[in-house]
Parts: sequence; structure tokens; C-alpha cells
Amino acid sequence: MRAVSFSGQNQCLTDRAKPEPRPGQAVIRVTVAGICNTDVELAKGYMGFSGVPGHEFVGVVEAAPDAPQWIGRRVAADINWGCGVCPVCLATDARHCPNRTTLGIAGWDGAFAQWLVAPVANLHAVPDSVPDREAVFAEPLAAALEVSQQIHLTAKTRIAVLGDGKLGILIACALRHVCPGIVLIGKHARKLDVAARQGVSARLLADQEERRERFDVVVEATGREDGLARAMDLVRPEGTIVAKTTVAGTAPLSLARLVVDEISLVGSRCGDIALALHYLEQRLVDVTPLIEAEYDLEDFLEAFARASRPGTGKILVRIGS
Amino acid sequence: MRAVSFSGQNQCLTDRAKPEPRPGQAVIRVTVAGICNTDVELAKGYMGFSGVPGHEFVGVVEAAPDAPQWIGRRVAADINWGCGVCPVCLATDARHCPNRTTLGIAGWDGAFAQWLVAPVANLHAVPDSVPDREAVFAEPLAAALEVSQQIHLTAKTRIAVLGDGKLGILIACALRHVCPGIVLIGKHARKLDVAARQGVSARLLADQEERRERFDVVVEATGREDGLARAMDLVRPEGTIVAKTTVAGTAPLSLARLVVDEISLVGSRCGDIALALHYLEQRLVDVTPLIEAEYDLEDFLEAFARASRPGTGKILVRIGS
Repeated sequence: MRAVSFSGQNQCLTDRAKPEPRPGQAVIRVTVAGICNTDVELAKGYMGFSGVPGHEFVGVVEAAPDAPQWIGRRVAADINWGCGVCPVCLATDARHCPNRTTLGIAGWDGAFAQWLVAPVANLHAVPDSVPDREAVFAEPLAAALEVSQQIHLTAKTRIAVLGDGKLGILIACALRHVCPGIVLIGKHARKLDVAARQGVSARLLADQEERRERFDVVVEATGREDGLARAMDLVRPEGTIVAKTTVAGTAPLSLARLVVDEISLVGSRCGDIALALHYLEQRLVDVTPLIEAEYDLEDFLEAFARASRPGTGKILVRIGS
Repeated sequence: MRAVSFSGQNQCLTDRAKPEPRPGQAVIRVTVAGICNTDVELAKGYMGFSGVPGHEFVGVVEAAPDAPQWIGRRVAADINWGCGVCPVCLATDARHCPNRTTLGIAGWDGAFAQWLVAPVANLHAVPDSVPDREAVFAEPLAAALEVSQQIHLTAKTRIAVLGDGKLGILIACALRHVCPGIVLIGKHARKLDVAARQGVSARLLADQEERRERFDVVVEATGREDGLARAMDLVRPEGTIVAKTTVAGTAPLSLARLVVDEISLVGSRCGDIALALHYLEQRLVDVTPLIEAEYDLEDFLEAFARASRPGTGKILVRIGS
């Protein structure tokens, strides 16, 4: 099959053997995959990744030896796969299994390929009304909604999202149904406008700084190491910063300020795919304005170069039908 | 009156005018004060402090024009003094008033002096059964107990305190009544033993590292910039680190790890003086083994030099009677 391969800091399109399902697994024909900033970080060496990248996808189940009822169904998938037998898997949350594999990120070949395998237990059927180019957003939309699964948000919570990239826009558009007054803060009027058209209060950073307003919750989604310091300027004492940025290396943190102001900093990663598919089916978020371009798999390297440029919208990769 | 004065990085003992009470204030004759690591940080330039330091004290009310019922009573005090009229004071927590003063730390002369003034509203009567040299621990013990006011701790919470300094020992000894299995981790067998004799499981860091055990909650009380990285190694995914260390400058934080493991980092500062006095009265914590030496005010500079040496126990300053 045709597949993208990352090895060290090399990326190429190659021919690989089509994967075979093991017990409990399904073979999925990938139809559309999305390029995430995490893929760009992987290419720079984050996670020491080697293999087929790609963790945002939608596809059709082609084989599932133990679960034939899935064959022919359109699916998205939880991207974390726990060992199932350790204390973390048994007692708490397989997403955090120390032996986990993560689709296209750690130890599990991903979606920039004609086929992938996934545990049947990870599959979620995509509602018929959600087209492929929207269903491919299930994974990042789940990550956006994860904030609401970690922090108790109410309609009165004063919350700001810092960063008008794809994830920041998704977070603001998704959480506004919980916090109608949510504010998106960024540097690009054109991007802020994508959220504003969906009912989000969007502000340029310079305008926000003049207001000197402090928020109960600030979601840091800048993708930059210095985003945390800026979030500290926006959060009130005893408030919460939700960190969404994964960058290699360390960010400087003013520990004294965190302690003196008794701020909470909460790391936030992947979320609930079923909840995201519900949001897409109910049209609670319109993801289509985020799509900047669509490429065929054979043009992946061109697509990836474009996705690597800061400020690019979502680049989708068409793989099958 | 005799008083210690910090100015820039100079420390001296000097004569100052005895403070006069304004409406709502009391004049307190200080009997005993404690030297805190924060005082040592102030001397290095933290907070840009200038004035009389000292925020751990016990004293006797000598004058209180609006509240004569306080005269002659032995008191400790909340060290934060909000403006009383801003939204933070009115709606939430005067401890975090942006215009606050803090006794001996910010804009309010402190306790290394024969007299200090404090708002009557900040005073707490010291129970008769608690001697001065124990009552002077009300402020740091309150800071230790603050962890339990911020995080929901239960008897089943697996919690570790990292750092066997004075604050770490106080935290472990205080929180063991909520979490009997609490573990104190440090580098000094002699200090760990102070907590162990009060029923805390105390371990050398090297022994802990061999166990590879992860905790639900890790209280970082090392007083060192690198303590945060070590706390990250001890906390489980989706667990909480409570940060107690205030150091000038920034600490390096592995943001990717915080995000991927969905760790919460909670800053923690001052606590509830009344709760601390309750703990002292009920003898729930024995603070006396923490006392290393007592000096007279006239020997403050010698006392301070000793307190500035890493690893020193609590140095008390006897000021009046």
C-alpha cells in the first residue's frame, strides 16, 4: 500500500505491506486524514517518532475478524490504546496507560496510509449526516472538548482562549455552548473572524491588553513556549490555566507567581471521540471554515510543507473513497 | 523602638518610631517572631522589599482604639490585608486583593520589631494552652494546611510531600490527619526522622526512586527551582502537583509532559490562621522539634545569618514578654 513514512527527520512517501488485523482489531481503509501541528512537531523529532504518522482520520472498516458487524461502517477512532492489564488501564484511564500506543504518534502506524489497523474497542461509527471532510475533525474537536471534561465550566465562568490557530478556534467554538461569553484572543483578524461568525467574542491581543481584564479560566492554545507567560497575565488569582500546547523542550514558568496567586495549571490532551461526533452531527460547531486545502496522498510532501508553515489552516489529505 | 530594617540587599538593626494605630487597627507588642525562608529570599531582592521584615509572630495587643476588648490578648494574625473595596475583596478573597499589603513582605512593616500594627479584623486570639514558641508557627502551619483547603484529599489519596525542610515537615505532619498514608520524601535522615516520630512515613529520595511509585498528589516543598521536575517524576498521569516553592526567577517546566499526562499544577500560598491555631491547641502537630535556636532581637543579624544557611531548622527571635 502507499503510505507516508517518518524516520528521524526524514519524511517520504513509500510502499509498505498492508497491515493484517490481530485478534480484536479491524482493518480500516482510510478515506480522509488531517495534518495536525503535532505531526509537524513529530517531524522535528518530538516523541522520537518513526513510522507512519497521522492520527486525525475517517475511514471504512474493511475487515474485522472478531466483529463482522463493523464491516462497511464509516468510523473514527480513539487514538490511545492501553495495554488493558496494568493498574492504570484497570482502575482509571487507558488513555494514560504507561505502555500505551498512540495512533500515528507512539508505536502504532497511523492514518497517512491507504489502510490502518485499530482495536475494535476504539472505533466510533460516524453518523451518516457527517461528511468525511467534517468527520476527520473528530479527534481535534474531542481534544477541544476535553477542557470541559476536566474543569467544571458554567455559563458564568469567565473564560478566554489564547491563540487563534486551528485548535484555539475549535476550543472557542465548542465551549461557547457551555460558556456563551467565551472570548477568543489572537493576533490575526482573519482567523478571529472564523470564530466570530460562529458567535464567539473574538478580540485582538492588543485590544485585550488594553482592557486589563482577568479571566477565571484561560485556555493556552498558542502552540508557543511563551504562551504560558501570557496566559499568566490573563488569569485572575486563584484562576485556572488549561495548557494545550505540546512543544519539545521546556517553557519558563514563574513559580513564585503561580504560588503567590494560587493559580492552577492543568495539562489537557485528547478527548472523547463520541462527544465530538455528537457535536458534529448536531452541527454545534462548523469545522469547514477551518479547511484551507485538500491534497491527494501522492502529494503529501507538498501538503506537509504547506501545513508546516505557521498560521496555515487545516490541510486535509484525501486517501481513498 | 528597636527594629530590623531591610533596604535593598542591606540588613541592619535600627531605631524606628513606634507605629501609631489608624482606625480599625491594633498596636501589638511582639513577643516572639520566626525567621522564614521567604525572609531570606527578601534579603536577596525577592519582591523588591524595603522596610521591617517578619511575618511569623505572636504578640500581645497593647492598644486598639476601636476595639478595646482586644487589649491584653495574645494574638496571631492573617498576614494579608486587602483594600476591602475592590471586586476581589468584595466578591472572593482579600488574600488576593491586587492592592493588598502583606505583613513584612509587601508594603506593611513586619514583626522583627518591638511593635507592629495590624487590622483588628486580621487578629486571631491564641488559646491559653499554646505557648508563644509554638503559637509563632501559626502562619507556616496555616500555609501547610492550605493544601487541604485547595485540593480534595481523602484517606485514600496517595500523597507525597517532596522536601524535608521546615515547611515540608509541617505539611506532612499536618496532612497526615487527613491522609494517614502520607509519605515525606527528602535527603536528610535526621530531618525525616522529625516527621517519622510524629507518625509520617518518611523516605530518603534514593529509596523512593527505586520504588518507581507514582502518587495522586505531590506537594513540592523543596524550595528549589529543580523541585518541580522531580515532582513531575513522582506524580501519576492525571495527578496533581501542589507548588509551595517561591523562588525569584523562573523554573523550567516540561509543558509537553504536563499536557500529555494531563497533570494539574496548583500554586499554594498562605492559609487559615484559625485552623492552624486549632491544630496547635489540639496538639495535632508538634512544632517544637523544628526549633533549632532562639535569639534575642539584638542578635538578629547573627540569627539571620544562621537561618540563611540551607538546611537550618526554625530560628526564633525573642522580642518582648
